[in-house]
Amino acid sequence: MKILVINAGSSSCKYQIIEMESKKVLCSGLAERIGQEMGRLTHKILPDAAEEKKIVRDEYFPTHVEAMELVISLLLDPEVGVLKSKDEIAAIGHRVLHGGEAITAPVLVDERVKKIIKENFILGPLHNPANLMGIEVAEKLFPGIPNVAVFDTEFGTSLPPEAYMYALPYSMYKDLRIRRYGFHGTSHKYIARKTAEFLGKKPEDLRSITMHLGNGSSMTCVKDGKCFDTSMGLTPLEGLIMGTRCGSIDPAIVPFIEEKMGYTPAEADAIMNKQSGLLGICGRTDMRDVHAEAGKGDEQAALAIKMLVRSIRKTLGAYVFLLDGIVDALVFTAGIGENDHIVRSEVCKNLESIGIKLNEEENAVRRPEARVISAPDSRIKVLIIPTNEELEIAEATEKLIKK
Amino acid sequence: MKILVINAGSSSCKYQIIEMESKKVLCSGLAERIGQEMGRLTHKILPDAAEEKKIVRDEYFPTHVEAMELVISLLLDPEVGVLKSKDEIAAIGHRVLHGGEAITAPVLVDERVKKIIKENFILGPLHNPANLMGIEVAEKLFPGIPNVAVFDTEFGTSLPPEAYMYALPYSMYKDLRIRRYGFHGTSHKYIARKTAEFLGKKPEDLRSITMHLGNGSSMTCVKDGKCFDTSMGLTPLEGLIMGTRCGSIDPAIVPFIEEKMGYTPAEADAIMNKQSGLLGICGRTDMRDVHAEAGKGDEQAALAIKMLVRSIRKTLGAYVFLLDGIVDALVFTAGIGENDHIVRSEVCKNLESIGIKLNEEENAVRRPEARVISAPDSRIKVLIIPTNEELEIAEATEKLIKK
Repeated sequence: MKILVINAGSSSCKYQIIEMESKKVLCSGLAERIGQEMGRLTHKILPDAAEEKKIVRDEYFPTHVEAMELVISLLLDPEVGVLKSKDEIAAIGHRVLHGGEAITAPVLVDERVKKIIKENFILGPLHNPANLMGIEVAEKLFPGIPNVAVFDTEFGTSLPPEAYMYALPYSMYKDLRIRRYGFHGTSHKYIARKTAEFLGKKPEDLRSITMHLGNGSSMTCVKDGKCFDTSMGLTPLEGLIMGTRCGSIDPAIVPFIEEKMGYTPAEADAIMNKQSGLLGICGRTDMRDVHAEAGKGDEQAALAIKMLVRSIRKTLGAYVFLLDGIVDALVFTAGIGENDHIVRSEVCKNLESIGIKLNEEENAVRRPEARVISAPDSRIKVLIIPTNEELEIAEATEKLIKK
Repeated sequence: MKILVINAGSSSCKYQIIEMESKKVLCSGLAERIGQEMGRLTHKILPDAAEEKKIVRDEYFPTHVEAMELVISLLLDPEVGVLKSKDEIAAIGHRVLHGGEAITAPVLVDERVKKIIKENFILGPLHNPANLMGIEVAEKLFPGIPNVAVFDTEFGTSLPPEAYMYALPYSMYKDLRIRRYGFHGTSHKYIARKTAEFLGKKPEDLRSITMHLGNGSSMTCVKDGKCFDTSMGLTPLEGLIMGTRCGSIDPAIVPFIEEKMGYTPAEADAIMNKQSGLLGICGRTDMRDVHAEAGKGDEQAALAIKMLVRSIRKTLGAYVFLLDGIVDALVFTAGIGENDHIVRSEVCKNLESIGIKLNEEENAVRRPEARVISAPDSRIKVLIIPTNEELEIAEATEKLIKK
């Protein structure tokens, strides 16, 4: 069975086709700068395999439809195509950010589901509109093939009330469903499963802390294999400092800037989501650029690194305390988590008294596989486990259409 | 030298007269429910001494002026008065919340200082207007006696940039002075000094974490005797859950409720400051009431306790990690910190692996003096040290007028 996984962003679209029996990725790709002057499609056949073949096309994509049409032509191409017909795809799994409290488990897409995704635009202003567009493009270009929505909030459903409630008037929870939902659930769920596997533990016994550090970043405290706390909240804005998001700040800053600067609520929200984070501090969103600038002596870039590390380290301490200091593993994953040894080193530095000690040599090396980067005498293990949200989405999709 | 200390709230006014040579409190008092149907003045002569004398007067106080006039009549009363003339007061020290970045050190009040306090109403909407009123009442009723403003933000001036900067557009710091200031500075500074004294350490070597838990609550991470991090931010709203304040929440909740409910920025701010916290969760603001309701089976009250404890414990873990796990002492202070053994016990529970272990018997006892409540084999000491903001303000005031 072949499953197409789509993760649609506002000006981008990531996709993979996975052969479920072998878990083999037949192709993967990324369409970028959709709607901009010049777009780019990077399409890989058998990615990361010895036979990998990469195709790059710079083209203008007015909308996601045109980008996806080019993808389809490559999929069916007589020479490099991985499909003979679109009908070989059994189902399409979509990453969707937010279904509120109405839907959290994977679900077959119908009009009701699309309506709920739309109703939750306000909770995921960066993601939900794009996710819905991805679904609509798939419906148009792959008629008759079932679409499954896999929600980023699923892992957060096990949060206890003292973790998901905010200390706001109780009616805001009752009437407006304002609560902590948590995001990156697909990644956190996948990593928790892989961590238990890696350690040879039963999933239900796992006590771990996952640091998903990418362009969006979040951390999860896992107790008894379930999500016990998580840093993102009602929306993916809360918690750590991210590429363009401010993370947690004094909430009184919002009315303050609205009054001082005359911002509307939507403008304040957009500033916090799109113009803040690393970008706000030093003008760069990609950690590789931030490191490069800091290396050249840029003080704001150096400050951005210190602030990012501090926000991760504080959250790590908070979660270690929630787990009574009894933790099987700290796990780094996603772009920064898997590749940025400086951030990992700074986060774990000088914590021997807590039982955390990196093997700095192993930490400095890059390898693609899951591995231990703590020293043998570290009471708490530190791991790197590459995340694979696409596989998690594909498996959830397969399960649902087999029902 | 006698110094009058005034801490004016919106409908209340606390005061003390301290004889500086002996540090003796000649009298202290609290005027409550000013502007309401029936107010109350509780005035104590030689409080906490064997000869303590308490006078309670239920009267209508239209404004702070009438309440302070009654106080003055008691101060000068031929029978119970502690003064022969108002001129015996050498200076009046006022607690003032926020002077922005313009003033943080204690300062003699003049028109410029009053203007700055007024300009910062927006940063301290609950406190600054009341603090300014306290100063103006003192100027009216004690003409010719110098007034000194002692700012709650002073201790926070040692925060490093990675602690005081928010990950917002850099211009918001440059142009609007949006940064973490920190509050309860007078208490945190006093407790840091007392902690070093108690432990027999040089103040500049101290590594400690102070939990100031009262109606307003904040925590401070002290490194080398200085404030290294603190939970309150631009305003006293950020951080822990408090009596009526929500503490840290997803900042995207603010535009969300403004759009959904049509709240103005000022209304959203008022909801977060005055209708949230313990009050929002369970309808009570005083922890004694919350415990009583929880004891009767009220689930929201039980939830409020769990949420409060969790917010303190997470911040404690964050700060222990900032101090590399090398901490001389955790210190509880203020109303809840000094008196609520349940909260203290829950915050410190099951942390033996980190080196924190309470002596539960000692913890359950009430005593007025500074003391150790951790077990002898606790690597990190846990202390209760009663705070004394009034003495700290009086000493700062004395220092300034002696210059």
